[in-house]
Amino acid sequence: MAAEILCVGTELLLGNITNGNARWLSEQLASLGIGHHRQTVLGDNRERLIEEVRAAAQRCRVLITTGGLGPTPDDLTTEALAAAFDTPLQERPQVWADIQAKLSGRGRPIAASNRRQAWLPEGAAVLPNPTGTAPGMIWSPRPGFTILTFPGVPSEMRAMWHATAAPWLQAQGLAEGVFASRMLRFWGVAESTLAEQVADLLEQANPTVAPYAGAGEVKLRLTARAESRAAGEALLAPLEATIRARIGSACFGVDDDSLASVVLAQLRARGQTLAVAESCTGGGLGAALAAVPGASDLWLGGVIAYANAVKQGLLGVPAALLAEHGAVSDPVAQAMAEGCRRCTGADWALAITGVAGPGGGSAAKPVGLVHIAVAGPDGCSSEAVRFSASRGRAWIQTLSAGEALNRLRLRLG
Amino acid sequence: MAAEILCVGTELLLGNITNGNARWLSEQLASLGIGHHRQTVLGDNRERLIEEVRAAAQRCRVLITTGGLGPTPDDLTTEALAAAFDTPLQERPQVWADIQAKLSGRGRPIAASNRRQAWLPEGAAVLPNPTGTAPGMIWSPRPGFTILTFPGVPSEMRAMWHATAAPWLQAQGLAEGVFASRMLRFWGVAESTLAEQVADLLEQANPTVAPYAGAGEVKLRLTARAESRAAGEALLAPLEATIRARIGSACFGVDDDSLASVVLAQLRARGQTLAVAESCTGGGLGAALAAVPGASDLWLGGVIAYANAVKQGLLGVPAALLAEHGAVSDPVAQAMAEGCRRCTGADWALAITGVAGPGGGSAAKPVGLVHIAVAGPDGCSSEAVRFSASRGRAWIQTLSAGEALNRLRLRLG
Repeated sequence: MAAEILCVGTELLLGNITNGNARWLSEQLASLGIGHHRQTVLGDNRERLIEEVRAAAQRCRVLITTGGLGPTPDDLTTEALAAAFDTPLQERPQVWADIQAKLSGRGRPIAASNRRQAWLPEGAAVLPNPTGTAPGMIWSPRPGFTILTFPGVPSEMRAMWHATAAPWLQAQGLAEGVFASRMLRFWGVAESTLAEQVADLLEQANPTVAPYAGAGEVKLRLTARAESRAAGEALLAPLEATIRARIGSACFGVDDDSLASVVLAQLRARGQTLAVAESCTGGGLGAALAAVPGASDLWLGGVIAYANAVKQGLLGVPAALLAEHGAVSDPVAQAMAEGCRRCTGADWALAITGVAGPGGGSAAKPVGLVHIAVAGPDGCSSEAVRFSASRGRAWIQTLSAGEALNRLRLRLG
Repeated sequence: MAAEILCVGTELLLGNITNGNARWLSEQLASLGIGHHRQTVLGDNRERLIEEVRAAAQRCRVLITTGGLGPTPDDLTTEALAAAFDTPLQERPQVWADIQAKLSGRGRPIAASNRRQAWLPEGAAVLPNPTGTAPGMIWSPRPGFTILTFPGVPSEMRAMWHATAAPWLQAQGLAEGVFASRMLRFWGVAESTLAEQVADLLEQANPTVAPYAGAGEVKLRLTARAESRAAGEALLAPLEATIRARIGSACFGVDDDSLASVVLAQLRARGQTLAVAESCTGGGLGAALAAVPGASDLWLGGVIAYANAVKQGLLGVPAALLAEHGAVSDPVAQAMAEGCRRCTGADWALAITGVAGPGGGSAAKPVGLVHIAVAGPDGCSSEAVRFSASRGRAWIQTLSAGEALNRLRLRLG
């Protein structure tokens, strides 16, 4: 057995948080081709940690831990690991200097408790933490058994993994072949429909195809096991082509693509600009665009027209139109989009107006009803969509923003 | 040790799915007052399952398993558990009849493999599955050690838990009282600083206090173990009062409160309205407000002024001001906030302009520098804040929105 994962934190045992770190690390180990057969979760308890790490040392070559590296008294991981192998802790001056520099840089007071984070077992190498104060370590307390520790904060753990741990693990010769994988992303098709269209491929042994459902988005993960990354990629390419040919334009991207990043790339290729007019999403569509680095070249901003007075005042939606059709209607969505193009000077505008709930619904305009307009150089159109009210407000807002981006994608495509 | 959780499934080890079942079961056990100190994840491997369940029998009184009850050859849990205690499997005619009826009712073919699901160890009681075909079991292979098995499908597991397992567990007298808990939420104080200010309380045994760090927000979870929920709440109330007295205004709320919900409640009490002007957050501040149901009474919307042309055109920021100070400056933030009040008619406006990165930074205006203005009936002020660039774009955007809301909270407070 090559590796094991040990996640430490009473908050995991109390069910306060989901163990997303274990899943992320599992994916990373799989992509490196390193087998792992066990994950354990323990609370912040010194004796149980000591017992577990001693047992793991009998079973695996590499133990990866998360959590318990913070400055507070319930952060016990480093201390327990040292105690498990009767090794004293020693302060690392560079680590302490780095912690002080980070805290000062943020204008934070330096507490005595932060100094605990600079203590590591004798013989352990520092696993640097580029963003947070808590470093991890790479430590072999016995021949053939190495412990890698990470903080529980996911962003810190991930940065440390990519920068130091993954290259180190790759150099250890633990890999049994490699996994190459690719995530295909879809919008506008149900998971069950997609699964039926690729039912034969879901049965394949290598490469495998597995469906996942997200918020509005559906994904297919393609995974190939091979001798090398290149050989794995060569297995994935024809599979991706087959799936794209079957599913068509509902496939909007791969891996780290988002609807927003794809739409911005389309606009960049055309040299055109975009603005948004949001009612029920309240800024969520803008936030999706702002999440893409470099969006500012093409995306100008827009108007959050939550109140009708803002729809009238900034977007120039006529009061009569609001009175006649109501704010949640195609004519108002169109007037918002046209008004947004006018007041920002953008080539394209997206407008969203709907009932996100939980209140505000009626028989004629129920919670989940959303009108989305796309206005561009060649005209403006609006269409309603009805999302399930039972999924709640955040779900309706997220799907509305995604649906708006997808409509523009198809129009630009 | 009362209970342990064992989740079975190679898909968990490959990182294909997140272990949401472990979190859900953890919450259920905590709410029943049943302590559990370990969770384990194993793949669909007979030998490792046998070894693990034998070890668990030495450690705990109740082992709860999920997964591996399906009809396919890699579903091994029941068989491995029986083998671990040298107990033969026997077919349960009622279970087999129930499986056939369910499959027929759905128009599904009845495969020979489905019959495997009707085999349980001798002496095991059926844990009925109201919705799916795979039943679980309640089985005591040894005195003082009971195994409860559940399928991995979350909806089936939850239904079985509520219908049969939870009442059974309650009747076993395993509960050590109930847990009452409360989450106190803080903004503007570092986790380590907060931990020092409550260092003595972190050492307490009951109620306990545990710190958590989020994106900008820091939390303290207060948990009391008591004979009844009311007795638990009575332990928490004075503890909360002590913490609030020590930390002061950095504590902004409890449990489901967010900065946005607290600010909206303050505005509601005053009968005043709010609008936003966002540059680098691109809609994220608006989205935080729109996440609160009923926000529309008080929050009018605003302007996403990502491009300078929108700052000028919609918010009336003078071109000369932009030229003199640059878009990321206190004068421009103030002009955005004042312009936002003017164009929306809101009583209060928040404006954010900064460098979210990764590009666009300079020595004078580095990535992470954000200017935030608050404009209200009694005037307008702006102040810069510098977030760590290394945390990335989304982090800077989230903290900027939170910081803006917190400044308004303190001004209204």
